[in-house]
Amino acid sequence: MRIGAIEAGGTKFVCGIGNENGAIEDRVSFPTEHPEKTLAQVFEYFKDKAVESIGIGSFGPINIDEASSAYGYVTTTPKPGWSGYPFLPAMKQQFDVPMGWDTDVNAAALGEATWGAAAGLDSCVYYTIGTGVGVGVYAEGKLVHGLVHPEGGHVLVRRHPDDEYEGFCPYHGDCLEGLAAGPALQGRWKVPGSELPQDHPAWAMEAYYIGQAVANAVLMLSPKRVILGGGVMHQPQLFPLVRAEVLKALNGYVSSDALAAGIDGYIVPPGLGDNAGLTGALALGLRALGR
Amino acid sequence: MRIGAIEAGGTKFVCGIGNENGAIEDRVSFPTEHPEKTLAQVFEYFKDKAVESIGIGSFGPINIDEASSAYGYVTTTPKPGWSGYPFLPAMKQQFDVPMGWDTDVNAAALGEATWGAAAGLDSCVYYTIGTGVGVGVYAEGKLVHGLVHPEGGHVLVRRHPDDEYEGFCPYHGDCLEGLAAGPALQGRWKVPGSELPQDHPAWAMEAYYIGQAVANAVLMLSPKRVILGGGVMHQPQLFPLVRAEVLKALNGYVSSDALAAGIDGYIVPPGLGDNAGLTGALALGLRALGR
Repeated sequence: MRIGAIEAGGTKFVCGIGNENGAIEDRVSFPTEHPEKTLAQVFEYFKDKAVESIGIGSFGPINIDEASSAYGYVTTTPKPGWSGYPFLPAMKQQFDVPMGWDTDVNAAALGEATWGAAAGLDSCVYYTIGTGVGVGVYAEGKLVHGLVHPEGGHVLVRRHPDDEYEGFCPYHGDCLEGLAAGPALQGRWKVPGSELPQDHPAWAMEAYYIGQAVANAVLMLSPKRVILGGGVMHQPQLFPLVRAEVLKALNGYVSSDALAAGIDGYIVPPGLGDNAGLTGALALGLRALGR
Repeated sequence: MRIGAIEAGGTKFVCGIGNENGAIEDRVSFPTEHPEKTLAQVFEYFKDKAVESIGIGSFGPINIDEASSAYGYVTTTPKPGWSGYPFLPAMKQQFDVPMGWDTDVNAAALGEATWGAAAGLDSCVYYTIGTGVGVGVYAEGKLVHGLVHPEGGHVLVRRHPDDEYEGFCPYHGDCLEGLAAGPALQGRWKVPGSELPQDHPAWAMEAYYIGQAVANAVLMLSPKRVILGGGVMHQPQLFPLVRAEVLKALNGYVSSDALAAGIDGYIVPPGLGDNAGLTGALALGLRALGR
């Protein structure tokens, strides 16, 4: 099979071709500019690829409500030209194949549940913690949409008692994203996270916030796996710290071997690594074919 | 159709007969005692009722993993005799009809989504705020189970700056349940919530906690409706206060008419009132027939 995949990010677009086993056979990447210019490059890439379907995991917020007249549109974004842009309709006008359409983080969650760290499971929560915090939710074998789509990067968390940083989220100040995304590390410690030593107290504080959010997600959703990706999670010392915070927050309340004995296999990095985004879009494309 | 329904609570059992329209035609109730004694009454009630299926919404925690050898068991509970009790297997031994089995709060969420305040919607979150806090989650047309089942009553919330009450949850102290369930009102203000006047500052503080939890649930799950039930929510002044807290916490981030213009129809009391539990069990029984 030849499936098309688009990882539509706010900074760059990645287009690729893959197969039903999750293997990416070809890929290109270009910066995200004005939609007409960007989509012209997408059209050019796919025009002679003879794909059976296309999956698109997009930056957002986007409209993923199939019953809406604005299904497939980007909704509100500061990105020039993209606010209200009919992304999926423009694609459909160009290519007459089934298309899958979801948020970039939901796509990544589906990719991980299909071929990655949650392969074979019918639920997982996927976090990307980088310049922002995004959350994809896969539950009972379905990507969660609901009213709009999950925006779990913006949940409120308890402030660490030693933290005087005000948070950078323009909407909420000190929500999870405002306190734990990359810019918060920079804002709080005055150097980029990547320059902080592994034993710096920054990481315990970072784990305090991420662990709290993950514990609340476990209580609310009871996912079978939690996947933590994104640039900030490239710091390997964070994983044991986050796991310890989650166990501390739950304090034995949720009774499951996966949590008590198997926490190292329960809160994990993405199995698809830096391919999670494009492979997730591939999974959306495959699902659009009913597979 | 004749569907059996069991609302299996920690304090009392309610058994009933209903039909495919959600109407309850008969009901009995008795205190929850040792399982053999309690189930003998259940067996006696249903033995000549000729029901086509039975739905059971049970107090928990319970095992709702169909792949588990302990499917249908109550897991760990301080309730004498019930810890590790094979509730569903005991029922199946007695009655050869399809059975639905889920938590009491998931059952209530399904009942509300079938005939109540979320009728026709494919997602809702149901809270019961009484002697404890329980949460049922219905997403993309399915009740969320996952690893165990949602336990969203125990999420961590930010403490109100004026609150000096330590919280009563034996696991987490000041989680949502520990700070906002009925015993917290009593513990903090030294009188039962039902005796506090409507303009008492207790209610603003109560709404602060509930609103925070609901805002986080909206961010994480994007439900199409949020239903707040249970004894504490019998205080009608709480609804506008909770709605205001949710809007304040979200601060316009989740862009949806349902939140901005329609918050009064988005965060609502149960449509099934005090029948939510039994009617939810009825919905489970109907679903067990593939309806």
